[in-house]
Amino acid sequence: MSKVETKTFASEHLREFSQRVFEHFEVPREDAALAAEVLAMSDLRGIDSHGVGRLHTYFDMLEMGRINPRPQVKIVRERLSTATVDGDNGLGLVVGPKANEIAMDKAAQAGSGWVSVCNTNHYGIAGYYPIKALERDMIGWSMTNTTKLVQPLWGGERMLGTNPIAIAFPGMEEPAVVIDLATSAVAYGKVEIAKRRGEEIPPGWAIDSEGRDTTDPDGMIEGGALTPLGSFREMGGHKGYCLAAMVDVLCCVLSGANWGPWAPPFALRQHIPERSVGKGIGHFFGAMSIDAFIEVDEFKRQIDDWVRTMRGTRPQPGSPGVVIPGDPEREAEALRRAEGIPLVLPLVEELRDISQRTGIPFD
Amino acid sequence: MSKVETKTFASEHLREFSQRVFEHFEVPREDAALAAEVLAMSDLRGIDSHGVGRLHTYFDMLEMGRINPRPQVKIVRERLSTATVDGDNGLGLVVGPKANEIAMDKAAQAGSGWVSVCNTNHYGIAGYYPIKALERDMIGWSMTNTTKLVQPLWGGERMLGTNPIAIAFPGMEEPAVVIDLATSAVAYGKVEIAKRRGEEIPPGWAIDSEGRDTTDPDGMIEGGALTPLGSFREMGGHKGYCLAAMVDVLCCVLSGANWGPWAPPFALRQHIPERSVGKGIGHFFGAMSIDAFIEVDEFKRQIDDWVRTMRGTRPQPGSPGVVIPGDPEREAEALRRAEGIPLVLPLVEELRDISQRTGIPFD
Repeated sequence: MSKVETKTFASEHLREFSQRVFEHFEVPREDAALAAEVLAMSDLRGIDSHGVGRLHTYFDMLEMGRINPRPQVKIVRERLSTATVDGDNGLGLVVGPKANEIAMDKAAQAGSGWVSVCNTNHYGIAGYYPIKALERDMIGWSMTNTTKLVQPLWGGERMLGTNPIAIAFPGMEEPAVVIDLATSAVAYGKVEIAKRRGEEIPPGWAIDSEGRDTTDPDGMIEGGALTPLGSFREMGGHKGYCLAAMVDVLCCVLSGANWGPWAPPFALRQHIPERSVGKGIGHFFGAMSIDAFIEVDEFKRQIDDWVRTMRGTRPQPGSPGVVIPGDPEREAEALRRAEGIPLVLPLVEELRDISQRTGIPFD
Repeated sequence: MSKVETKTFASEHLREFSQRVFEHFEVPREDAALAAEVLAMSDLRGIDSHGVGRLHTYFDMLEMGRINPRPQVKIVRERLSTATVDGDNGLGLVVGPKANEIAMDKAAQAGSGWVSVCNTNHYGIAGYYPIKALERDMIGWSMTNTTKLVQPLWGGERMLGTNPIAIAFPGMEEPAVVIDLATSAVAYGKVEIAKRRGEEIPPGWAIDSEGRDTTDPDGMIEGGALTPLGSFREMGGHKGYCLAAMVDVLCCVLSGANWGPWAPPFALRQHIPERSVGKGIGHFFGAMSIDAFIEVDEFKRQIDDWVRTMRGTRPQPGSPGVVIPGDPEREAEALRRAEGIPLVLPLVEELRDISQRTGIPFD
């Protein structure tokens, strides 16, 4: 990374500011606190793209009345271990945690709980949800669809979102294994970084607006698409496409949300799809009580052993060696809890703009 | 593919032969029929690596007493929507279908059913299990760990199996979307094919025994490893590693089976790991009743729309255009039901060898 000028803020300060911004739009106090917590976890874990960096977008959407600040989140269908939830066009940051809670409550009763959600919006980092399940000795799952950005393999245009999958497993003495991955080869942000630096992107990250493989960031940004995980057919690009399809169906077809290219945009300036095939975007949450399968302590001891065994892998020459899923985010969190969250100056300006327009003091 | 000499057999003939071979080892008639059905589906769907092509290995394992021909498959722990199953060291081709049935029966009662299985063996194609769930208007999931063959990203040795994930979604007029993918970049068989042809393999498929990236098939085969889906860090190799880890934990840590490098080998000639951390290998099955979430017809109509929308994607220039997951296998099945299953001559010899040693007529 080239050195970028930043200003550092305590996580608690940003969390409080976010909460007050949500409350400004009549989001109920508890819901606003929940939404701010999701954003704060993202910033703490070093995932800058999903924290307060997106507050201005939520602000815009609330201000334009595109998101319902006081949703009645409702179960529209349920069985002992399953539910379909209508998010009433609320903030995904509020609907998501509530639907995740329903999955966990069902898991406490029936061993597992699975919730497909329609009529919702962007829900922050996928990893937030399984991390909450760890507190209850559960294995949590989370998925969401997102605005189209990715080609299906051999497609020449954007048809699927980056559709992430997250799941986490608790250890005893070792930290939890926390998996959180987008099903595209890379994040859009990496293409933007290359553009800012005037660099090419590696072959296999993207196609241009004609559907051709491209190494030009602008080729992707201006009407092109990201590739699915695996990139090319020969390298397994069909597998990334399959995973994105799986997420799309579980989140949207199962709940009655807008799938594939019909997912509504997250931000105001984005194109609105010509078709609507359901309500809002969709999420999918799962929770499995570990003690429904095995003694919790036995499971955690084995996870410790698994983690140590993987760390003990002979390293590939010239590499840092094997990393446990969740390690980088945990290290970021330790640092940022101690030293604060570094925000780039354009983002600080965005937050000041919100402050001016709402009267909520920022700094 | 270069032209290889083959001899063609009716699927029914191969299924019957397999069944009689299993019965020869005192596998109960119904179990033998089940096992033969799993192999037959693999051959029909064109997945030659997992059909009768593996019968001789099952034969060896049964003959050596390494697999229990008459297992008592037992639920050792359960809740309304979950179970842990001990496969009693039976054929995975028998334990798998029975555990999958338990998942589906639970889904019929509780909306979903999730079964983690220990003390089992190789279970054939992962896709068999969700395809069975389609008959009951359920979304089926299946995963299994396998003998170590894949590096965790930045690791210099084999630590994880090719750990596949399968899931399927039924359509109304369109065929089902059937996803079945290994979490490695490519299958081992592709490296073997390159070796036979004297060709190099593409960068990103494999590392050699020193942990270095290699394009030499022998480098991988002789003590090297396959890469996870995504191959390199820059291309998302950490994501494939995360998916393989997820499968490993759900199948093995959750059930009490041997995870990671400690998975016992499938074939006789393979190295036996120095540690045992559980019983046998592990599987994980899931089933979700569609009508627990949404009207079944509504779901299927939306899948039809999803399939047609994806097929309607503008094709990438020079490519065949977007394929729906499961299309290639469905096309193979139509052809092979009509024309039979082509077997390469060395495989025909293997089956004749079984025939001679058991007295079961082959051809």
